[in-house]
Amino acid sequence: MLNFNYSIPTKIFFGDGQIEVLGNEIKKYGSKVLLVYGKGSIKKTGIYDEVVNILKSNNIEYWELAGVDPNPRITSVREGIKICREEGIDFILPIGGGSSIDCAKVIAAGYYYEGDPWDFLIKKAKVEKALPLGAILTLSATGSEMDAGAVITNMETNQKLSVGHPSMAPKFSILDPTYTFTVPKSQTAAGVADIMSHIFESYFSRTKEAYLQDRMAEALLKTCIKYGKIAIDEPENYEARSNIMWASSLAINGLLGYGKGKDFRWSVHAIEHELSAYYDITHGVGLAILYPNWMRHVLDDENVYKFVEYGVNIWGIDENKSDYVIANEAIDKTREYFNSLGLPSTLKEVGIGKENLEKMAKAAVDHNKGTVGSFKPLTYEDVLNIYMASL
Amino acid sequence: MLNFNYSIPTKIFFGDGQIEVLGNEIKKYGSKVLLVYGKGSIKKTGIYDEVVNILKSNNIEYWELAGVDPNPRITSVREGIKICREEGIDFILPIGGGSSIDCAKVIAAGYYYEGDPWDFLIKKAKVEKALPLGAILTLSATGSEMDAGAVITNMETNQKLSVGHPSMAPKFSILDPTYTFTVPKSQTAAGVADIMSHIFESYFSRTKEAYLQDRMAEALLKTCIKYGKIAIDEPENYEARSNIMWASSLAINGLLGYGKGKDFRWSVHAIEHELSAYYDITHGVGLAILYPNWMRHVLDDENVYKFVEYGVNIWGIDENKSDYVIANEAIDKTREYFNSLGLPSTLKEVGIGKENLEKMAKAAVDHNKGTVGSFKPLTYEDVLNIYMASL
Repeated sequence: MLNFNYSIPTKIFFGDGQIEVLGNEIKKYGSKVLLVYGKGSIKKTGIYDEVVNILKSNNIEYWELAGVDPNPRITSVREGIKICREEGIDFILPIGGGSSIDCAKVIAAGYYYEGDPWDFLIKKAKVEKALPLGAILTLSATGSEMDAGAVITNMETNQKLSVGHPSMAPKFSILDPTYTFTVPKSQTAAGVADIMSHIFESYFSRTKEAYLQDRMAEALLKTCIKYGKIAIDEPENYEARSNIMWASSLAINGLLGYGKGKDFRWSVHAIEHELSAYYDITHGVGLAILYPNWMRHVLDDENVYKFVEYGVNIWGIDENKSDYVIANEAIDKTREYFNSLGLPSTLKEVGIGKENLEKMAKAAVDHNKGTVGSFKPLTYEDVLNIYMASL
Repeated sequence: MLNFNYSIPTKIFFGDGQIEVLGNEIKKYGSKVLLVYGKGSIKKTGIYDEVVNILKSNNIEYWELAGVDPNPRITSVREGIKICREEGIDFILPIGGGSSIDCAKVIAAGYYYEGDPWDFLIKKAKVEKALPLGAILTLSATGSEMDAGAVITNMETNQKLSVGHPSMAPKFSILDPTYTFTVPKSQTAAGVADIMSHIFESYFSRTKEAYLQDRMAEALLKTCIKYGKIAIDEPENYEARSNIMWASSLAINGLLGYGKGKDFRWSVHAIEHELSAYYDITHGVGLAILYPNWMRHVLDDENVYKFVEYGVNIWGIDENKSDYVIANEAIDKTREYFNSLGLPSTLKEVGIGKENLEKMAKAAVDHNKGTVGSFKPLTYEDVLNIYMASL
């Protein structure tokens, strides 16, 4: 197990009805709130009204940044910062999934930075502090509710990049599984694929002695696999929704990554980000398409043991079979599982052809200092091959 | 999954050499430190000198409370509070295992309370705030380094009771696995039994829908089982010591218990506390003796499914066997495993006879509002039967 510094300060209020803490929690930090949300599904579900009523009854003033896109844009961030400065906002309250929360995080950091917030993403500037924020989660996927990172897209430059700083972690997040009852099947599936991908990114590392972390990763993977299908078939199954929701936070809050090394870099997320940057597809869908092909591409004599572990512990494949048979069966099972959730297997199915693959492969490598990922560093040719295999 | 509020604010500095952060971390909170430690093994190992040198080079003044017993006494707590008041201590630094840390926690809370600190333990007074503390861990067992609870013994009244408050959680803990290289085999074994017992207390609950928590509990149990034996055979095996050390913190920091209910009460710890209160035996040893007998006693048609889960997932017992066969084999395996670590199976082996069993059973029930534990609430007769079976 490699050295690590563990700090997960976000408080979680988990469960049905936890919205009741909202007023008191906000008042610990401020009284002028910016709501950040997406295309308005929270108005249909009644969550918006619930929140607004709580704010009013607590004499908390609020402003709104609505219409945040699924791949949140830097333009929304700029707009949010403007409102915060003009109105003297002291607390940011995203309501939604990772998009709204990520957008809110960069607004919070950008508030204290004089230049353009895109500078954070292209590493021209460093985040130093951020306005406090708290999140109300309505979609289990990115885990942004319990970490300090954000991913923002710039459609002008076809870039989807990430930034993180401890000050950007939510002070608290409210996770009410009933808020995800209305999430459509396709988004539920993409969310589960996203969570599983976060777990894979930590699990497929070369740090052999982080046994505990690997078994915890398997615990979360089993949870996703068991409940993903149930949540799609029975959208109001609380047991399924609650297990998936908590898995989404634990998958990426640091628990699985601590002990795997500071410089450990993710693989498939980096490749997928170029897909979303160019085509604005759903992140979890892109991940589901790419992951089995990445697995097949990187599998080799040195790392086959890891795929054997995965196949035996997660998919119950007979450990007496030969290593490569287990590994390949495990990869097949992964694809079959994603398919069983109704997720596509190919880029064609989401309208992506050959036209930009080379450009995207080059961008993936450029955005990652020459090679992508730590498990098996990928060159330009590797990335291109994975894209080609995914067509 | 039941509702929960998650808050684990303790920072962890994990790994070889992490002591280097000590000076800077303390200075965030204070400059007059009370060291709290046990019988002086930290002087033999050199950790004491290392700490003192860091304090001196950071111009941090320090005082000492040495000689804290393995079941820390309320008398040590009183002594510590006296030093803190007389010298104007502003930070407490336990160095050791759970005993030193627990003692430090109650000193920290008692500092702000005018009455006798034993009042906290007998629920005559409530903790409201505490001096800040940070821990340097030298023994993997209680998990006190990452939680907000403490257990204190009063040898005059034969009571071993617990108290907890968020303010008592360490601000930071330094977990350097190499500090446990010198822990003797018997204490290593008792520590592993203690960690496994903490996991059992959460795992054996009736909350069926906390699937994620149960799989995480199994991840930690597997870690203990795999590395417990290795750490005893190869005391300087870093992989084993680090996995056990991190398991000790995660077993009890809340991760496994969140979602299992606020009023969920532990079983075997409550029974064991009476043993240590009367006989001052090592906590982990008492737990190892009692646990399989508790399992056998509570096993019934309603909860056998849980023992089946345990037997199949942890001990790899063939799931096609009948439920009770699996359950009983799993209990046998538990005993065999503890034995393989060199732990005793009977109270006789630790010098406990029949003489106080009735008194202890009565005390266990009295200290727990009439029945012990939530998994299957134990009456006086139940507790007595478990003690008798353990003779």
